[in-house]
Amino acid sequence: MADSGDRKVAIIGSGLIGRSYAMLFASSGYQVSLYDIEIEQIDKAKDDIKSQLLKLEEEDEQYQLIQGVTDLKSCVEDAFFVLECVPERLEIKQNVWKEAEPFITRDDVILSSSTSALLPSDISRNFLRKERFIISHPTNPPFYVPLVEVVPASWTDADVVTQTLKLLESIGLVPVLVRKEVKGFVLNRIQYAILAESWRLIRDGVMTAGDLDKVMSCGLGVRYAFMGPFETAYLNAEGMHSYSERYADMILGIQQDMGPPERMDGPVLDLIQIDMEATVGPVSEIQQRRQWRDRRLAALAKLKADLNKND
Amino acid sequence: MADSGDRKVAIIGSGLIGRSYAMLFASSGYQVSLYDIEIEQIDKAKDDIKSQLLKLEEEDEQYQLIQGVTDLKSCVEDAFFVLECVPERLEIKQNVWKEAEPFITRDDVILSSSTSALLPSDISRNFLRKERFIISHPTNPPFYVPLVEVVPASWTDADVVTQTLKLLESIGLVPVLVRKEVKGFVLNRIQYAILAESWRLIRDGVMTAGDLDKVMSCGLGVRYAFMGPFETAYLNAEGMHSYSERYADMILGIQQDMGPPERMDGPVLDLIQIDMEATVGPVSEIQQRRQWRDRRLAALAKLKADLNKND
Repeated sequence: MADSGDRKVAIIGSGLIGRSYAMLFASSGYQVSLYDIEIEQIDKAKDDIKSQLLKLEEEDEQYQLIQGVTDLKSCVEDAFFVLECVPERLEIKQNVWKEAEPFITRDDVILSSSTSALLPSDISRNFLRKERFIISHPTNPPFYVPLVEVVPASWTDADVVTQTLKLLESIGLVPVLVRKEVKGFVLNRIQYAILAESWRLIRDGVMTAGDLDKVMSCGLGVRYAFMGPFETAYLNAEGMHSYSERYADMILGIQQDMGPPERMDGPVLDLIQIDMEATVGPVSEIQQRRQWRDRRLAALAKLKADLNKND
Repeated sequence: MADSGDRKVAIIGSGLIGRSYAMLFASSGYQVSLYDIEIEQIDKAKDDIKSQLLKLEEEDEQYQLIQGVTDLKSCVEDAFFVLECVPERLEIKQNVWKEAEPFITRDDVILSSSTSALLPSDISRNFLRKERFIISHPTNPPFYVPLVEVVPASWTDADVVTQTLKLLESIGLVPVLVRKEVKGFVLNRIQYAILAESWRLIRDGVMTAGDLDKVMSCGLGVRYAFMGPFETAYLNAEGMHSYSERYADMILGIQQDMGPPERMDGPVLDLIQIDMEATVGPVSEIQQRRQWRDRRLAALAKLKADLNKND
C-alpha cells in the first residue's frame, strides 16, 4: 500500500491505544491524523507522544507526522486506514462510526477497531461499508508487546484481511489471524483459562497467590517468552505424536480434574489481594510497579531482537 | 544446614535431572555423591557435567566435588539430603528407596524425589522414615529455569519442609510450596489448562497452531517471563478488587464458553504436527531447536539478574 502513495492513517480516539498506534504508524513514515473530541485531550496525547518518542530516541520528524484534530471529517477524509480506538462500549463505538463513515472518501478504505471485547459483526452490522471492517486488537503496551489479533467478520472482504495483516507487520507488529468470531478472541481466552485454574488452586489452598505467580515467572513463563504451548510440547518430546504417546492420557486425567470456573470475587479475591500487596506492593505504588514491568518488557524486546540477529 | 558441617548430598540417578541437581549442589560447594547402576552411565554423566561446567565458566573445583558411584551404600551413607531422580515409574522409585533406605545413617536426613507425576504419599507410603520424605520437582533445564515445586505428604515433618525450601533457595533455585497433593502439582496443571483451551481453538478452526504459539511468545508470554497471572491482573487495574469489578463478569462468561478437555490425538494432532514442522522445523532438527531455546533461556536468566541488580 505504501508504494501507491497511500500514506494517511486516521486514528479516532487519543487514549493509550490510539496514541500507541499513532507512534507506531508515524515511526514507519505514515502521516497520522489523530482525532479526539476535546482539544485538551489532543494536547495531552501529543505531549505524551513527544516524551515517549524522545525516550525511544526517535527523530522529531516522526512527531511532525502526527497531526491532532478535533474535526472528524478532516481526520478520516483521504485516509486509507481508519482505526477507531474509543472506549469499550458497543454504543459508543457504533455512534462514532455512524458519525465518521459519511466523511470517508476512499472506496478501498480499511475500517478497523482496536476492541478487545466486542465482536466485529456486532460493531459493523449497520455500517455503510461493513465489508471493509476488521478488528486489530493490540496488546498493551504495543511498543514492547507486538502481538495484534486481527479479526474479520463473516462479511469482511478477503483483501481487507490480507492488507491489514501486511500493514501491521510492516510497522513492526506481529499480527495473527482469528478466523472465527469467538468471545475474548484467543489471547484473552488463554489468559482466562490460566486464571480459572489458578483461582481454583488458591481456593483449594494448594498454593499461595505469590508462589503461584512464581510458578509462572520463574518456571513456565520464561519459556513462553520465546515459544508457545505447542512448540513447548513439540520440543519436550520428539514432535507432537511422540508427545501424545507419552503424555496424552496423563494430561487428560489432570485436565478432567479441574472443576468449573468461578466468578472472581469474595474471600478468595481478598486472599489474593492481601498476597499481592505483600509480594508486589500496595495499590498506591502500582504506577511504579508498572514502570518496573515496562522496563523489563523493553529490555526483553531488545534481547529477542539481538538474539534473532545472531542466530 | 551448611553451617553445621552437613555437606554431603546423595543423588540417586544420573540422568538429565540428576546431573543438573549435581551441578547445582556442587556449584554451591556441597559434596555430591552421584549414583547410577552402571559405570558407563556415571562416566557419561560426568563427561556431560564437565562440559556444562566449562560452558558456565565454573572452576574445576566444582567438578571435583562430584563423585560418581555405583555402590548405593557409599552414595547415601552420611548424606543429609538424599535426592532420587530415577525414571517416572512408581515401582522403580519404590524399589530404589527400599534398597537405599537401610544404608541411610542419619536420623535427621531429608529424603526427596524429583518426580513430576507421582504423589509423595504414593512414593513414601512404605518407607522406614516416611516423615522425612518430600518432593523437589524441578523445571527443565534447571540451570536456566529455577522453579522447583516442593510437595510434602500429609505425614512429612514440618522441619523437612522448611529445611528443603531453605536448602533449594541457597543453591540458587526458586522453591514454591505445594500445600496439598494434587495431580500434576501446580506448574503442569497450569500448563495443561493452557493446552486444553489451545487444543479447542485449533479443533474449532479459530487459529492455526503457529499463530496460536505467537499469541503466547509475542503477546502473553513476554509478560509471564516477569510476572504471574495474578500480578498481571493486579497491574491491569488498580489491584484485584478493581480488576474484579471491571472484568469478573466478562471473564466468567468467556471461561464458561470453554468446553470440556479432549484427549490430544487424531486429526487435530496431525494438524498441529504439520504446522509445527512448518514453523519450528522438522522433527529431525529438534535438537538444534532445543539449543536455540536454551540459548534464549540462558540469555533471559542473565537479563533478569541484571535488571534486578539495577532496580
